[in-house]
Amino acid sequence: MRGDARRARNMTIQKATHVYWHQGAITRNDRERLNGHPGFTIWFTGLSGSGKSTLAVASEEALYERGFHTYILDGDNVRHGLNKDLGFSPTDREENIRRLGEVAKILRDCAIVNLVAFISPYRKDRRMARSLSEDGSFVEVFVDCPVEVCEKRDPKGAYQKARQGIIKSFTGISAPYEPPEKPEIHLRTDQLSVGECVHQVMSYLKTNQYISC
Amino acid sequence: MRGDARRARNMTIQKATHVYWHQGAITRNDRERLNGHPGFTIWFTGLSGSGKSTLAVASEEALYERGFHTYILDGDNVRHGLNKDLGFSPTDREENIRRLGEVAKILRDCAIVNLVAFISPYRKDRRMARSLSEDGSFVEVFVDCPVEVCEKRDPKGAYQKARQGIIKSFTGISAPYEPPEKPEIHLRTDQLSVGECVHQVMSYLKTNQYISC
Repeated sequence: MRGDARRARNMTIQKATHVYWHQGAITRNDRERLNGHPGFTIWFTGLSGSGKSTLAVASEEALYERGFHTYILDGDNVRHGLNKDLGFSPTDREENIRRLGEVAKILRDCAIVNLVAFISPYRKDRRMARSLSEDGSFVEVFVDCPVEVCEKRDPKGAYQKARQGIIKSFTGISAPYEPPEKPEIHLRTDQLSVGECVHQVMSYLKTNQYISC
Repeated sequence: MRGDARRARNMTIQKATHVYWHQGAITRNDRERLNGHPGFTIWFTGLSGSGKSTLAVASEEALYERGFHTYILDGDNVRHGLNKDLGFSPTDREENIRRLGEVAKILRDCAIVNLVAFISPYRKDRRMARSLSEDGSFVEVFVDCPVEVCEKRDPKGAYQKARQGIIKSFTGISAPYEPPEKPEIHLRTDQLSVGECVHQVMSYLKTNQYISC
């Protein structure tokens, strides 16, 4: 494990001691051979209403059509299941992302291309999720859209509720968003269509040999 | 959702409100078509040293050889990652299994045959994990071995530490184990070889049309 990965893993202290690691007979390589491709993570970060879920869904479709094994981890959906015990405080957001990062790791191990759509507003939390991945299996996509435009779209009526104070700690209104400094892909969704954005994602994946077709 | 599933999900209160469900374009059916089979869960429960991990590894190998997409969720391994913040108190054990159950659900959604090897000592927790699955996609395997035999095997030296009081809340010694009442498969690992046990698992899966070969 690299140093930064070790540090990130140590952010949450392991409570269970006397726990051993069991190596299976079937390895990640075996699963990649069966699927015909390795697993990797495409992590969409951005404000609510910026288009993360829309782009994850459209990108998944494009990948599935090319024969890839895919899965979407949508922040909202995961909050109905695995992360239902977590809210929106900074600590809960961190734990949210830690768990998502661990599930993304499991899915990479399954040779599945997993697309994570999650506001993930803090740089250090995204860095932690990335640190769980092996080199080059993590593609960060900054879904960039001015908050005014997101607020106009407001597909879930969430901005309105945030302005009214009904929703507390709302990213972009009453909680901070730290834009990525060096995302692998930067998409201006106020200027590009969904199709154009997906094209950019696919081009990046092809140029960087994640996909061959 | 069935009533018992709804009740089980409500055991953990959803903290995040104003969260919407995003339906992807690629469905579970699409993934099953791509993999050539649906996903299901084989849940191995039993004492430490009863042979859960060994049987999960050997069963995975047998399934992979038949062309199935597989993954092992080993309790010990998960405690190094997703569940590293949890210990061995009854509440932590419950949360451990809740998360494992949710990840197993994600893997079923990916059309992956997932094998869970986890002591999972409490009936109500196993019931909760089962309730997250759709009818018939959850196969409970009781890995049954007298505690005296497990203690003699003691592959990790854990029983010795439990007897010395170094490990607290150790299932079978200082914490209870509730055997399954109606497991789909019941294996006496003190009487059968690993090969015989795997044969029983495969026979069950074939007879009940989880697998065809």
